[in-house]
Amino acid sequence: MASQGGPDPSAVPVLKDLTIENITENVHRINSQCADPRLKYVMERLVSHLHDFARETRLSFEEWMAGIKFLTEVGQICTDVRQEFILLSDIVGLSLLVDSIDHPKPPSSTEGTVLGPFHTHDASTLPSGTPISGDPAGTPLLVLCTVKSTSGAPISNVKVDVWETDSHGKYDVQYEDRGNKADGRAVIVTDEEGVFWFKAIVPVPYPIPNDGPVGKLLERLGRHCWRPSHMHFMFEKGGFDNLVTALYVRGSDYETSDAVFGVKESLIVGLETVTAQQAKQYDVKEGTKLLKYDFVLVTDEETKKLRHDEAVKAMKSLGREGMMVVNGLPVPDVD
Amino acid sequence: MASQGGPDPSAVPVLKDLTIENITENVHRINSQCADPRLKYVMERLVSHLHDFARETRLSFEEWMAGIKFLTEVGQICTDVRQEFILLSDIVGLSLLVDSIDHPKPPSSTEGTVLGPFHTHDASTLPSGTPISGDPAGTPLLVLCTVKSTSGAPISNVKVDVWETDSHGKYDVQYEDRGNKADGRAVIVTDEEGVFWFKAIVPVPYPIPNDGPVGKLLERLGRHCWRPSHMHFMFEKGGFDNLVTALYVRGSDYETSDAVFGVKESLIVGLETVTAQQAKQYDVKEGTKLLKYDFVLVTDEETKKLRHDEAVKAMKSLGREGMMVVNGLPVPDVD
Repeated sequence: MASQGGPDPSAVPVLKDLTIENITENVHRINSQCADPRLKYVMERLVSHLHDFARETRLSFEEWMAGIKFLTEVGQICTDVRQEFILLSDIVGLSLLVDSIDHPKPPSSTEGTVLGPFHTHDASTLPSGTPISGDPAGTPLLVLCTVKSTSGAPISNVKVDVWETDSHGKYDVQYEDRGNKADGRAVIVTDEEGVFWFKAIVPVPYPIPNDGPVGKLLERLGRHCWRPSHMHFMFEKGGFDNLVTALYVRGSDYETSDAVFGVKESLIVGLETVTAQQAKQYDVKEGTKLLKYDFVLVTDEETKKLRHDEAVKAMKSLGREGMMVVNGLPVPDVD
Repeated sequence: MASQGGPDPSAVPVLKDLTIENITENVHRINSQCADPRLKYVMERLVSHLHDFARETRLSFEEWMAGIKFLTEVGQICTDVRQEFILLSDIVGLSLLVDSIDHPKPPSSTEGTVLGPFHTHDASTLPSGTPISGDPAGTPLLVLCTVKSTSGAPISNVKVDVWETDSHGKYDVQYEDRGNKADGRAVIVTDEEGVFWFKAIVPVPYPIPNDGPVGKLLERLGRHCWRPSHMHFMFEKGGFDNLVTALYVRGSDYETSDAVFGVKESLIVGLETVTAQQAKQYDVKEGTKLLKYDFVLVTDEETKKLRHDEAVKAMKSLGREGMMVVNGLPVPDVD
């Protein structure tokens, strides 16, 4: 008999006499009612790790309460233009890890990295060659790139999003008076040779937003909040896996201590200098700084197969061979 | 040389070329700058479990983003009178676990359980015998209790907080028009024999707040949001460990499937019936429902020793013998 609109209690798995040792299996038992096998597996792993964390640290009530308050503050500082939970995920290396898991790359392709919170959807589509930065204080930079497949064929008509800060280390959206005027960002489309190029400014290191709870945590951890000089790139083209990545300027401050763990060796690029011939061809001054890179995209099919294979391999190496992999994601095998 | 106000990059541990396999040790390396050994250990365990969770589930970008959105919603629904993160902690068994770890109990003492979000600090201190519920629709209940030490000695002058819902399963604070009029709650002080008693109503099962993100999660997990009939008790007395607990009415709906994992066998009590003699003594009708319980408090000293011993035992059984235990909390041994 159910209480005032509650469900039939006899239809629910039975828990009793909860202890430090048996609470985890009891939570699993009550969550086993979930009809979605993937969610059930994700919750099973989440609860196991959360409980093991508390047991291994002997987490105190005061520490737990400090955690509750911290997470509440992280949630409450979020707005349409500030995502503090993503920032938190970034500074504990989770964002980089999830990108690496979800977008596996064959050795010949360009690696991905963290998206960060400063991409927008309102950048204008500009022809190659256009200057994207309106900051006269920036050091001019010529950016010359190609986009190819893993077999070396140029890919035309790729939509390339690029964005960078101004010379003060601020993205346009970090200025309150930005309005609708995108600056330091553009969408450029590759030509038949897979080429895109534009004029920009040399990226500078900058601090991530550090006036909120995540900034306070970094401080308590004795960590700085700086990112090394970089420029963001995002590639979209039907049939290919979206690539979210960035190029890092070799020798930049914080190249080896990025606050959000975004740097990968293959994405660090030494700046070159524009030759007399290039100066003429691209209409910039001789001696201008030059960033060159050849991006390699992976097809959806390659990615799908790789994601599946990597998931199977990971389950094997974790000793979880009783799992199926469906759409690249492990789920418990059905009975 | 530091960038525009940033710290000296050469003073920071070196990270490079992050992969699925090495990201965890890299985050540990950069967090190793933390000057607080306890925070360093807690972060080390937190990051390890978070990363293992992502690797074991092969967490996808979409799932990660769903998690970011969920946590943001949990934070944003929180107010002065609603703590959704505590509710989240409750329904995954973390609150019960932390209470059990932080308040270890010798076998002869009363077990603790979840505080829940409905305790307030504005209940009036009433003499034993006072009715605490103003709900005429509730079934009358006489509550007769004692408070003793583990050696069996009565403890006088214990401040006892009690709180329960009305007959509709709502706490006073869940009514918008409550104002300053506390109902269904009181503070009572034990006499020289360690006795406290009061008039109340028989508790009823009720649903936890289920109109927010936690309620939606329970639904997706196929779980109900009900708690079995119970009455909350909190004990404070100098020299004794604070006891936060509750008594559960034997045979209540959801006794074996409490949405917040609060039920422990030793806290389930069968209701008795008031005899003719008791009716006279306590000025209630013969046949009135009767809740009797003898609470046993643990001294601060006993608790401190037990907390230390349990932490040492836990580190041993986890194979983490290179840890010190300071104030009951594991920290890495100093070099």
